[in-house]
Amino acid sequence: MKTLVIVSHPDIEKSNTQQFLKASAATLSQVAWHHLDVNLPFDVPAEQHAIQAADRIVFQFPLYWYMAPASLHQWLTEVWLKQFVYDAHGGLLRGKSLGLVVSFSQPEAAYQLGGKVGFSLSQFLTPYVALAEKTSLDLLAPLTISQFANQTDMAHQQLLVRYQQYLTLVHPDDPDEQAQWYIDRLQANPETSILADQLAAQTDEIDRLRLTLHELKAGESE
Amino acid sequence: MKTLVIVSHPDIEKSNTQQFLKASAATLSQVAWHHLDVNLPFDVPAEQHAIQAADRIVFQFPLYWYMAPASLHQWLTEVWLKQFVYDAHGGLLRGKSLGLVVSFSQPEAAYQLGGKVGFSLSQFLTPYVALAEKTSLDLLAPLTISQFANQTDMAHQQLLVRYQQYLTLVHPDDPDEQAQWYIDRLQANPETSILADQLAAQTDEIDRLRLTLHELKAGESE
Repeated sequence: MKTLVIVSHPDIEKSNTQQFLKASAATLSQVAWHHLDVNLPFDVPAEQHAIQAADRIVFQFPLYWYMAPASLHQWLTEVWLKQFVYDAHGGLLRGKSLGLVVSFSQPEAAYQLGGKVGFSLSQFLTPYVALAEKTSLDLLAPLTISQFANQTDMAHQQLLVRYQQYLTLVHPDDPDEQAQWYIDRLQANPETSILADQLAAQTDEIDRLRLTLHELKAGESE
Repeated sequence: MKTLVIVSHPDIEKSNTQQFLKASAATLSQVAWHHLDVNLPFDVPAEQHAIQAADRIVFQFPLYWYMAPASLHQWLTEVWLKQFVYDAHGGLLRGKSLGLVVSFSQPEAAYQLGGKVGFSLSQFLTPYVALAEKTSLDLLAPLTISQFANQTDMAHQQLLVRYQQYLTLVHPDDPDEQAQWYIDRLQANPETSILADQLAAQTDEIDRLRLTLHELKAGESE
């Protein structure tokens, strides 16, 4: 699966979040990292070609006044031209998925009724839901990054894993795909391949137990 | 009342809507028209001074992919700096109002559940609600302009009136302020001043009837 990460950030060198994400994605051979703010003016045919070649497109940005920074909007205006992304029969990007990697400086809990912000991220991101529907993209649940600078090293490690999975797994939220992702990583290293075998055996065992449970339930309802 | 109209449009010369609005605002002495796209890079202190001097700030833009074009976002990022618009005690723009003049190429009815777009304008504009709350601006109901090119001359005339009222009335949706707006305009012209007197008399009569009705209702509930 090829993934195109569209990064919108006007001051990326000073963003620890973006530098961390960039380093996290650097080892992934099927992932292209594309920072919009240094690619102005846009080469529209090249941008459209990169979109066509990708199976997943990820919009990655910090929230500025509850919205993406300017460069993502400019890119959408210049590159996501009507004739390129939809026609009378529907969206022309069918079969691809759209991910959103959104960072912000408030705690997650601020984004809800009665929270400090008072609105949910889902409310702020509604335009992307409409955009995905119009172009027939499968929208993934956003990967949110709250107060990166205040996070522990452990949380940063977890973010690295979540992010790599978000960019490479067909269903990033699927526990089986997540387990397989760990197994692949452990097997690639001779020192951890035994751990990988153990994890794979456990995963198989979980699958067997699930099947048994499923059969028992099926029996109940007969 | 001083109004600052912040216009975001990357191709304004070709926009009949924006040219019409510009002409409609041209005669209003207390209204400053500020087209962002030709003022790059922004002179931040001058921009902030203009905001300070205004009683009403209006964000005016077409919807591109259900959001404002890039220049409004860039302006917000560079000009609406935290220390300028809010502090620990709340928003620093208290006492001013925020208007939204939003144009789009779909019919109004597309922006609802089950409509062609499937989401409401209120959903798409949620970031501006949060922005107004954060800065203590009073948010006005948006003035929406749907399919300007397909509108009749009569509809264009009505838009001119609605727009001028939106930029100049303290409460643009208030029928009394709207009536007074007509009276002021008619009185300014010797040929229509008699009409103005008639309209003013009718408005007074409506006020008297309202008062009578109010007293009757108050009597009922005693």
